[in-house]
Amino acid sequence: MFLKKIKTPGLSHLSYILGSNGKAAVIDPRRDCEIYLEIASQQGLEITHIFETHRNEDLITGSPHLGQMTKAKIYHGPNAAGPIAFADIISDQQEFKIGNIKVVALETPGHTKDHVAYAFYDENHDDGAVGVFTGDALFVGDVGRTDFYPDEMKEMAGALYDSLHKVMDLGDQALIYPAHGAGSVCGSGMAEREFSSICHERKNNPRLQLSKAEFVDAKVNEVHYQPPYFENMERLNLVGAGPVPRVLVPKVLSFSEFKGQRFDVLIDVRDTMSFASGHMKGAISLPVGMLPAFGGWFLNKDQKIGLIGDSMDQLSQAMEHLWRIGFDDIVGGYTGFVKSVAQGGAFDRIPTLSTRTVKKRIEEADENWVLLDVRAQDEVEKIKIDEAQHVYIGHLNEAWEDLDPQKHYTLMCASGQRATVAAGWLQSKGFSQVDIYLGSMGAWQAER
Amino acid sequence: MFLKKIKTPGLSHLSYILGSNGKAAVIDPRRDCEIYLEIASQQGLEITHIFETHRNEDLITGSPHLGQMTKAKIYHGPNAAGPIAFADIISDQQEFKIGNIKVVALETPGHTKDHVAYAFYDENHDDGAVGVFTGDALFVGDVGRTDFYPDEMKEMAGALYDSLHKVMDLGDQALIYPAHGAGSVCGSGMAEREFSSICHERKNNPRLQLSKAEFVDAKVNEVHYQPPYFENMERLNLVGAGPVPRVLVPKVLSFSEFKGQRFDVLIDVRDTMSFASGHMKGAISLPVGMLPAFGGWFLNKDQKIGLIGDSMDQLSQAMEHLWRIGFDDIVGGYTGFVKSVAQGGAFDRIPTLSTRTVKKRIEEADENWVLLDVRAQDEVEKIKIDEAQHVYIGHLNEAWEDLDPQKHYTLMCASGQRATVAAGWLQSKGFSQVDIYLGSMGAWQAER
Amino acid sequence: MFLKKIKTPGLSHLSYILGSNGKAAVIDPRRDCEIYLEIASQQGLEITHIFETHRNEDLITGSPHLGQMTKAKIYHGPNAAGPIAFADIISDQQEFKIGNIKVVALETPGHTKDHVAYAFYDENHDDGAVGVFTGDALFVGDVGRTDFYPDEMKEMAGALYDSLHKVMDLGDQALIYPAHGAGSVCGSGMAEREFSSICHERKNNPRLQLSKAEFVDAKVNEVHYQPPYFENMERLNLVGAGPVPRVLVPKVLSFSEFKGQRFDVLIDVRDTMSFASGHMKGAISLPVGMLPAFGGWFLNKDQKIGLIGDSMDQLSQAMEHLWRIGFDDIVGGYTGFVKSVAQGGAFDRIPTLSTRTVKKRIEEADENWVLLDVRAQDEVEKIKIDEAQHVYIGHLNEAWEDLDPQKHYTLMCASGQRATVAAGWLQSKGFSQVDIYLGSMGAWQAER
Amino acid sequence: MFLKKIKTPGLSHLSYILGSNGKAAVIDPRRDCEIYLEIASQQGLEITHIFETHRNEDLITGSPHLGQMTKAKIYHGPNAAGPIAFADIISDQQEFKIGNIKVVALETPGHTKDHVAYAFYDENHDDGAVGVFTGDALFVGDVGRTDFYPDEMKEMAGALYDSLHKVMDLGDQALIYPAHGAGSVCGSGMAEREFSSICHERKNNPRLQLSKAEFVDAKVNEVHYQPPYFENMERLNLVGAGPVPRVLVPKVLSFSEFKGQRFDVLIDVRDTMSFASGHMKGAISLPVGMLPAFGGWFLNKDQKIGLIGDSMDQLSQAMEHLWRIGFDDIVGGYTGFVKSVAQGGAFDRIPTLSTRTVKKRIEEADENWVLLDVRAQDEVEKIKIDEAQHVYIGHLNEAWEDLDPQKHYTLMCASGQRATVAAGWLQSKGFSQVDIYLGSMGAWQAER
Repeated sequence: MFLKKIKTPGLSHLSYILGSNGKAAVIDPRRDCEIYLEIASQQGLEITHIFETHRNEDLITGSPHLGQMTKAKIYHGPNAAGPIAFADIISDQQEFKIGNIKVVALETPGHTKDHVAYAFYDENHDDGAVGVFTGDALFVGDVGRTDFYPDEMKEMAGALYDSLHKVMDLGDQALIYPAHGAGSVCGSGMAEREFSSICHERKNNPRLQLSKAEFVDAKVNEVHYQPPYFENMERLNLVGAGPVPRVLVPKVLSFSEFKGQRFDVLIDVRDTMSFASGHMKGAISLPVGMLPAFGGWFLNKDQKIGLIGDSMDQLSQAMEHLWRIGFDDIVGGYTGFVKSVAQGGAFDRIPTLSTRTVKKRIEEADENWVLLDVRAQDEVEKIKIDEAQHVYIGHLNEAWEDLDPQKHYTLMCASGQRATVAAGWLQSKGFSQVDIYLGSMGAWQAER
Repeated sequence: MFLKKIKTPGLSHLSYILGSNGKAAVIDPRRDCEIYLEIASQQGLEITHIFETHRNEDLITGSPHLGQMTKAKIYHGPNAAGPIAFADIISDQQEFKIGNIKVVALETPGHTKDHVAYAFYDENHDDGAVGVFTGDALFVGDVGRTDFYPDEMKEMAGALYDSLHKVMDLGDQALIYPAHGAGSVCGSGMAEREFSSICHERKNNPRLQLSKAEFVDAKVNEVHYQPPYFENMERLNLVGAGPVPRVLVPKVLSFSEFKGQRFDVLIDVRDTMSFASGHMKGAISLPVGMLPAFGGWFLNKDQKIGLIGDSMDQLSQAMEHLWRIGFDDIVGGYTGFVKSVAQGGAFDRIPTLSTRTVKKRIEEADENWVLLDVRAQDEVEKIKIDEAQHVYIGHLNEAWEDLDPQKHYTLMCASGQRATVAAGWLQSKGFSQVDIYLGSMGAWQAER
Repeated sequence: MFLKKIKTPGLSHLSYILGSNGKAAVIDPRRDCEIYLEIASQQGLEITHIFETHRNEDLITGSPHLGQMTKAKIYHGPNAAGPIAFADIISDQQEFKIGNIKVVALETPGHTKDHVAYAFYDENHDDGAVGVFTGDALFVGDVGRTDFYPDEMKEMAGALYDSLHKVMDLGDQALIYPAHGAGSVCGSGMAEREFSSICHERKNNPRLQLSKAEFVDAKVNEVHYQPPYFENMERLNLVGAGPVPRVLVPKVLSFSEFKGQRFDVLIDVRDTMSFASGHMKGAISLPVGMLPAFGGWFLNKDQKIGLIGDSMDQLSQAMEHLWRIGFDDIVGGYTGFVKSVAQGGAFDRIPTLSTRTVKKRIEEADENWVLLDVRAQDEVEKIKIDEAQHVYIGHLNEAWEDLDPQKHYTLMCASGQRATVAAGWLQSKGFSQVDIYLGSMGAWQAER
Repeated sequence: MFLKKIKTPGLSHLSYILGSNGKAAVIDPRRDCEIYLEIASQQGLEITHIFETHRNEDLITGSPHLGQMTKAKIYHGPNAAGPIAFADIISDQQEFKIGNIKVVALETPGHTKDHVAYAFYDENHDDGAVGVFTGDALFVGDVGRTDFYPDEMKEMAGALYDSLHKVMDLGDQALIYPAHGAGSVCGSGMAEREFSSICHERKNNPRLQLSKAEFVDAKVNEVHYQPPYFENMERLNLVGAGPVPRVLVPKVLSFSEFKGQRFDVLIDVRDTMSFASGHMKGAISLPVGMLPAFGGWFLNKDQKIGLIGDSMDQLSQAMEHLWRIGFDDIVGGYTGFVKSVAQGGAFDRIPTLSTRTVKKRIEEADENWVLLDVRAQDEVEKIKIDEAQHVYIGHLNEAWEDLDPQKHYTLMCASGQRATVAAGWLQSKGFSQVDIYLGSMGAWQAER
C-alpha cells in the first residue's frame, strides 16, 4: 500500500494519492494536478479513481483535468449545490477497490451538505479501517466550520456532530487524513501536527469532548470570515475550471512595457518590509506567502492583474497561487522595483513605527489619528490595545469606504505583516497618511 | 547576451535560445518545447522570435506549439516543399532585433532548398558577426548531407558549396552553432566537439579544403541512409504536429492487461543484453538509447505501440523519444520482464557467441549458416569479415523478406548492439535460428 | 510538529526526523547522513538529539558523523554488546524535550538487549503519546526477530513479548514508526503498508494475538538467515565507522586500466538478464537493487572491489549501497560491458531455460543434472518442485564447496533473479555447466 | 571533447572542466569543488589534472581539496608571491595530454607575475588551438587589471601587452575561455557576452586596438579598487584553505539564542528595501547578491559573523558566498526580522527619499546636510550631481571616521542599492541621521 500526502502551501491544502497493486486513487486533487500523475507513474500505478470529499470553497479542484488526463472516474457526494458537471454522485457505504484496498464512502454532511469521508481497508489486515480521508469534517485538533448555510447554522452543526461520530465509529485504530492542515481558512485551532489517529482525536480534540448540545452551541458561536472569492470557487467547482498553463510564468515585461499595460490591479508580491520602503504608485501589497489567504479578499473575478516581484521565481509562485484560487488573467510581471525608480518611476512608501512612537501618539490623543487593528475577531478578543479601533483586514475591502481619508491611520496586527497589507490597500484608495506599527501586538506585550 | 544550447540526446539535435535585454529568440525548437519557456523565464527574457533553419526531416519541430505559448512569430526560409502553415517566410539578409543583438538571415540552400543560417551581431562590438546558427549546412568537422533530392544531387551539392562560403564570409571571428552534434543521422564525420569558429573550420574541416568541383564530387559519392520516417517528419513539419502530453508517461499496464491489449508492435526498450537473455514473444528490440536513430526504420506511422522496459523512467524516456519523431500512439507500458515469465508469460531468447565460435562456424562452412553484417556501408568499406554478407540494419525493415527463414543467421555489427536489434527483428519475423556475435568486428580485430 | 520519514531503499530502513519549535531529533540515522541536516535546515530546525533504537546489525549508523556535524548528543540504550564509543547510555523512562515535544525512552529488549523505543507526546494534546519509534521491536504487521543470541532464544523471545506489551500500553491512539518496512532482512511478514497505529496492530498483527507461551514458541521456531556481514556491522556500530566520501562515485576506469587493476572481487551490478547474456570472465552478479540484501553474503570485509555497470549513475548507486553496509574499498568502476568485448575482452554467459526444458530434463532424469532451488526455507515450505535440491542462496557463499563442479546445475528461485545471482556465483567458482530456470517457481505454477 | 563552464554567481568567476576519452582537467576550481567531480563522473571522466591560471586574489581556490579528492596533480605558473604549497610549478610551453586533447601552458604575466594561459588542441583537427583558457589576461571585451604591484605598474602593463599578443598568436580560430565574466571586480568593461574568439577580440576588444605605448598608458591610468580581503585571499591561495563544510547551512538560532550569541558583526542579507524599512539594531546591510562584491570591504578576517535573512535558503546562499571568499566563522543565522520585533526586539530604519525631496534639500542648502555619492570613480566621472560629495562605497570602511556623525547624510549611488548598504554602515557606526536617495543618479537623470 502506497500513500503519499501532497501539501499545497499557503492554502494548507492536503491531497492524497493512495495506491496498491498497480492502481491508485487521488483524493481532492488540486488544480495544477500533473504532480499526481508523475507520482503515480514513478510508483508504477495507474490512477483509476478520483475522490472528492466535498465541493471546495477555498481552492479550485483539479478533478476535471486529472480525469481527462488519466481517464479515471471522478466521484463526488450527493446534495451538492448543483449538478457536478464532471463527477459521478456516490452514496453512503458505496465501495471501491484499488488493488488490495477497499475504499468505503461515508456521507458526512455538516461542513457542506455534499461532504463525504472515505475510509480505506487493507485486505490483508482488515480488522477495522486503516485510515480515513476526513476532508473538512475532522482535522487534527479541530473540526470543520459549519457556517456556510447562514439559515441552517444549527442544523449543519448538528449534522457535523453526527458525521464525526460516524467517522469515530470506524474505530480507534484508524489514522486520519484531513484535507487541511494548520494555517487553513477552513477551521482555526488545528494542531500543527499533520498526523493523528481516531483514538488520539477522540481523547484530545476539544470539539470531540462535547455533548451534541454543547457542540452545536459552540459551533454556532464561532466567528469565521468568508472572503468573496469563495463564491467564485464554488461556482467553478460545479462546472469545472480549465487547466493551468503548461509553463506557469507570467509574461516578462520591461518597465516601459509594464507602464504601458492596462492592469485592473497591480499586486506587489515582495515581502511587506520591501513594500513599505518603496513601491510603485498604485500597487497593493500581497506578499507571495499571503496571497492564498488574503488574495481572495482584495481581488475581483476577471480583473486584469499585473505582478511586481523580486525575481521571476517569486512571480511564478505568485501566479501559481493565483491560478489555484481562480484568478487567471495575469497580464504580465515585472521584477526590480529599485530599477524602476532609477528609470524615473514614481513610488510611494509607508513608514514603520516603533512601540515608543505609538505610545506617544496614544498619549497625545490627536483626534485626527487612529490606531487601526486589523486582526481577526478571536485575536482581538484575547488581547487588544484599548485605544485601537478594529476592522478585520479582509473587511477593509469594503470597509475602507467608511473610513476618512483625511485622517491619519496607524495600522497594526499581531506583528506588522497584515498591517502592511492593510496600509497598502488604504494608500491605494487615496489615504495619504498611513503608517505601520512594526511589531504590533507582539511588541506591545513584550514591552510590558 | 545570453546564449544557451539545448541538446536533445539520441538525435544529437542542438537548439538554442539567444537573449538580450529582456527579449529572446529560439532557434530550431524541438517538439517538447516547454524547456525554452522555462529557461527564458528564469533569465527574465520574453521569447519574441522563433527561427527555423530548415524543415527538419529527422525530428518534429516545436515551433507551432512554442509560438502558441509565447505569441512569438515563427520564421522559416523560402522554397520549402510546400507552404509552412505556421511560419512567416523570410528572405536573404532580412534583419531582426533581439534586445542589443542584430540577427541576419542568410539563405543557404544545399542540405535543403529552404535552408537559412542566422548570423548574429553584438551591437556593442560589431566588427563582424559574433556567431552564426548554421543549421544543417555547417557542422563542427563536417558539412550537411545533400542527398534529399535524388535528381538534383549535383545542383544541391554545388548550392551547399556556395552557401558554406557565404557563411565563411562572415569572417574568422564568428563562432558556429550547428543544429547537430556527433551521432546525428544528418552527417557522418562530425567532430565530437560541439564548439568551433569559422576560422577553425576553415582550417580544419576536411570538406572546406576542397575546390567546388572536388566538393561536389565528394558529396555526390557519399552514401547516406534515409529512414522511411523522414517522409512523415517532412509532412508534419509543413503542417505542424500537435503538442506532447503534459505528463509524458505511458499508461501503466499490469501483465494481464498488457496481454489483453492489441498492439501493432511491441517494443522492448531494455538494453540489448537483457533482450538477448529473454524477451516476450513477438517483441522487437529497440533499446531506449537507440530508439531515436533506429525507431524510424522499424516503426510505421499510426501503429499502436506497446512498450516493455526495466522501469517507468525508462519507459517515459522511450515515450519522449517516440513523440519527438512523431510516433504518438503509445497504448501502454509494462515493466518487469522476469516477473511476466514468473506469471507464465512465454519468452524467447537469442544466444550470444564469441569470436571462437564464429571462427569455428566459418571453418565449418555450413551452407545453411550465414554471418550477416548489419553495419553501414562506410563501416564495411573500412574493414570487414570476408565471409560475411552485408545488409544495412535499417534496410532489414524490408530486406528480411529476401532472407531465408529456414537458414541460421548470426548477426554482427561493430560491437553487438545493432546485431541484437537486427536479430530481434528477424526473430519477430519468424526466423527461428538467429544468434549474436558479441564483440563483433571489434572483437574480431582484437583477436589478431 | 514536523515528522519526516527517510526511507533507504534496498535495506528498507526507515529513519526519522522529528522537529518542533526550532529543534529536532533524528532517529536511527543512516551512514550517508547529510540528508538529515539538509531537511532540518530547510525546516529551520537545529538537530539537538540523535536517538538510536539499537545497535543495528544490517546497516552502519550515521550517528557519529551526524553528531560531529551538528554537535547533537547521541543516545543509545543500555546493555549493548560493548561500550558504544560515541553515545550516551540512557535508561528507561528517561525524558527529553524537543521544542514542544516530550520524548520518553522505553527499554524494549528482545530483538537485541540494548533496544529502546521512543514514545513522543504533543504538549498541546497530551492525553497519550502521539506516536512511538518502535525500532526493530514492532513493525507494521510483524515483530522483530529474536535469533541473535542463539543460547538465549527463549529468553529473548519472552523479553520481546513483554516489550511489545509495554509499547502497546502507550495506548491505542499512538502511531507507530518502525525502523524497517517490507523487504527488510530484519523480519519477514511485514505489511507493505508503512503506517499504522497501536490499535490497528493490536487488532491485526498476527504476533500480537498470541499468549506469551504461544509467542515464544512461534519466535523460537522461526528460521532467519544471518549473513556474515552482520558481524562487521555490529563491530562498526560499537566503535563508529568513518563518514562516506563527499562525492560518492567510483573512480572511472578505462577498460585497459580496469584489466590492469587488482580486484579481490568483480561485481557486475547490471540487471540479471544482462548478466546472463554476457559478463566479464570472473565477475559475480549482484544487481544494484539486490546488493543491500545479498551483498553481505558474498563479499568479505576488506576486499578490494571492482564494479561493472550500465552507467555511472548505476555505479554510484551501487557504491552508496556498499558504503551503507560497510564495504568501503571500491577501487574503481567500468561501464559498457559490450564495449569491453568489442575491445577483445573475454566473456562468459549463462543460458536461460523455459519450463518446458526443465520438465524435459526432469523426465530425462540425468544423474549428472541438478535442479537447485535457492529460495529461503519458508518459501520452500510453502511450495516446491519435488525433484529440486535446496540450498539457500546466501548459504552458497560456503555451500558451493559441497557441490560438484563436474555436474550440471540449473538454478531456480521464485522468478529467476536470485537464480541468476546464484548461477553467477557458481560459475565464478569454476562450475562450467550452469543455467537459469527463467520464471522458476512462478512459471512452474502458472503452467498448471 | 567535453567542455563545460561552471559559473559562480556574484563573483562572476568562470571555471571549466575539459574532458576527452575518459580523462579530464579542471581549470581554476572554486572552493566548493564537489561540482567538478560530479560533472566528471556523470560524463564518465576521471579528473587527472588541475590547472590554475594564477593565484586568485578574489576567491579561494578549490585546487587543494579537489586534488585530494581525485588524486589529480595541480599545476601553477612560476613566479608566484611565494611557494604554492599544493601545486607543481610549470613552465612555458609545457605540454599535457588529456585523452585526445593536447594542453599547452603559456606564461602570460601582467595581471600577476605567475599568470599562465592554457591553449588546447584537438588531435583530430589540429591546425591551430581550438581554444585557450585566458584566466585574467584576456576577457571578452576587456583585459585584466595590472595594478597589483604598485611600484611596477608600467612593467606589468607592458608584460600584459606582450602576453596578450602571445595569446593572439595562437590564431584567429581559437575560442577564448576567460576566468571572469561581466560583473567581476577583476576588470571593468567586460562584455555581457561570455563567448568569443581570438579573431573577434582582435577586431573588437578596445584594448587590443592600441600600440604598446598607448596600452601601457591606458592601463596605468585605470582606477581600480582593491578590497582588504584580497590580501587574505592571496595568503590562503599560497597555503591552501580548508574545504567547505559538507552541508553548507548556518546553525539555526532562535531569537533568544540569537540575542545571546556574541557576534563581531551582524549581517542582514535581505534585500536593501527590506533593510531600510527595519532591521535589528547594529546590523549592517549586505544583501546576499552583493555579498561577494562588497563583503570583502566591510568584513575583517576572523570576525565571528551572525546572519539575518528572509529564509534558510537565503542564509545558506550567503554562507556559500562567504566561504568562497574566506569568511568561515559563521556562528549562526536567524530568519524572520518582523517576528523578532514582535518579540520585543529593537530595530532601526532608514527612510527613502524621492528626487523631489533631494532637490528641495539641495535648494535649502542646509550646511548640516550632505548628499554623499558612493559610486565608483569612473561612474562619477561620467555624470554626477554637482552638490554631492564623493566617497567610494568600499572606502567607507575606513573613511567613515572622517565623516561627522552629527551631520545628516543622504546616500546616493546609481539606483539606491549601494546607497542603502552605505547608509546601513554609517548607521551602525553611530550616524543617527542617514537616509537613502531612492532611484539616485538614474532617477535624477530621468527627471530631466
